[in-house]
Amino acid sequence: MAATETLTAERILEATEEVLRRYGPAKATVVDVARVLGVSHGSVYRHFRTKAALREAVTERWLERNVVELRPYAEGRGPADERLGGWLRHLFAMKRQKAGGDPELMATYMVLIGENSAVVDRHVDHLVEQIAAIVADGIRDGAFAAADPDVATTARAVFDATDRFHDPAHAADWSAPGIEPAFEAVLSLVLRALRRA
Amino acid sequence: MAATETLTAERILEATEEVLRRYGPAKATVVDVARVLGVSHGSVYRHFRTKAALREAVTERWLERNVVELRPYAEGRGPADERLGGWLRHLFAMKRQKAGGDPELMATYMVLIGENSAVVDRHVDHLVEQIAAIVADGIRDGAFAAADPDVATTARAVFDATDRFHDPAHAADWSAPGIEPAFEAVLSLVLRALRRA
Repeated sequence: MAATETLTAERILEATEEVLRRYGPAKATVVDVARVLGVSHGSVYRHFRTKAALREAVTERWLERNVVELRPYAEGRGPADERLGGWLRHLFAMKRQKAGGDPELMATYMVLIGENSAVVDRHVDHLVEQIAAIVADGIRDGAFAAADPDVATTARAVFDATDRFHDPAHAADWSAPGIEPAFEAVLSLVLRALRRA
Repeated sequence: MAATETLTAERILEATEEVLRRYGPAKATVVDVARVLGVSHGSVYRHFRTKAALREAVTERWLERNVVELRPYAEGRGPADERLGGWLRHLFAMKRQKAGGDPELMATYMVLIGENSAVVDRHVDHLVEQIAAIVADGIRDGAFAAADPDVATTARAVFDATDRFHDPAHAADWSAPGIEPAFEAVLSLVLRALRRA
């Protein structure tokens, strides 16, 4: 069968997301994924050794799309304060879209995230590394004051301080009136903290 | 009966908390409250016209204890940055104690809070007013730079930026290792934003 020749991890993960969406996290099985792909479940297991590994990989893929989308801000040129503002605004926009645009898929991933806290921790580390890159550029350019105590701690503090605008625990607030000005006020506070006096 | 002569709103609220603790929010009734106090339920209704009003009042009392406890920082003298640090540290400590010390009562109040979002909004307003008082003092003393755009918005941004350390949605993180340094890093970021250059 032609399908098996081109069976990649990425294709399996796409099919897994489709199956999760269709059956929900409680009922989705590796056999369902294989059926969608028109392959044997053994072919799926050659790429992902267990169902748990497959679920972890699909969760990681879902989360890491944020990192890919935010990369232009992290690696871009231009003033560090604008890049950080853009990064935070874009993260908030993506999170709101995920929460509001497809609540069922979001709920599915919330279940998977609950099963895979190590994946979430790694993902947060990647996001904080992107903030750290922007902060380090800002310090080098003289736009930001030297980080106190250090860039990694400062970047984590920026992530934590804006947590109301990206942690799914707050998703219910994201459609409240006044959430936009609240975000802008926190962003402005964070930038004031970073800017060179 | 002597009890009726001294029946105050405060005594009813104490008894209501006791009844909520004993029976849980789903089962607690006004009749239970009256029984604990040794009065008729009519006597309770003379102070609180409905069961909903009683539940709202007991929720408000529970929340507003924080405001009372934090008042010394809000109204105190001394450097504004130390007062704000003390205020935020004390709020975090109280929230952790409530969440960790008596999880059952905490769960009860989480149910009541879900029923009374207007009470929570008023309570948050009171907390933000305390932050605003400290920020305004700091600006007057020259310790803090002029608030941009204004004191009320800045105070709300300080509250939102520290949300990971007082919003019950994050209670599960409060016993995680590293939560103390994470709090101190956010506090330090917030104070850097406020201090005069």
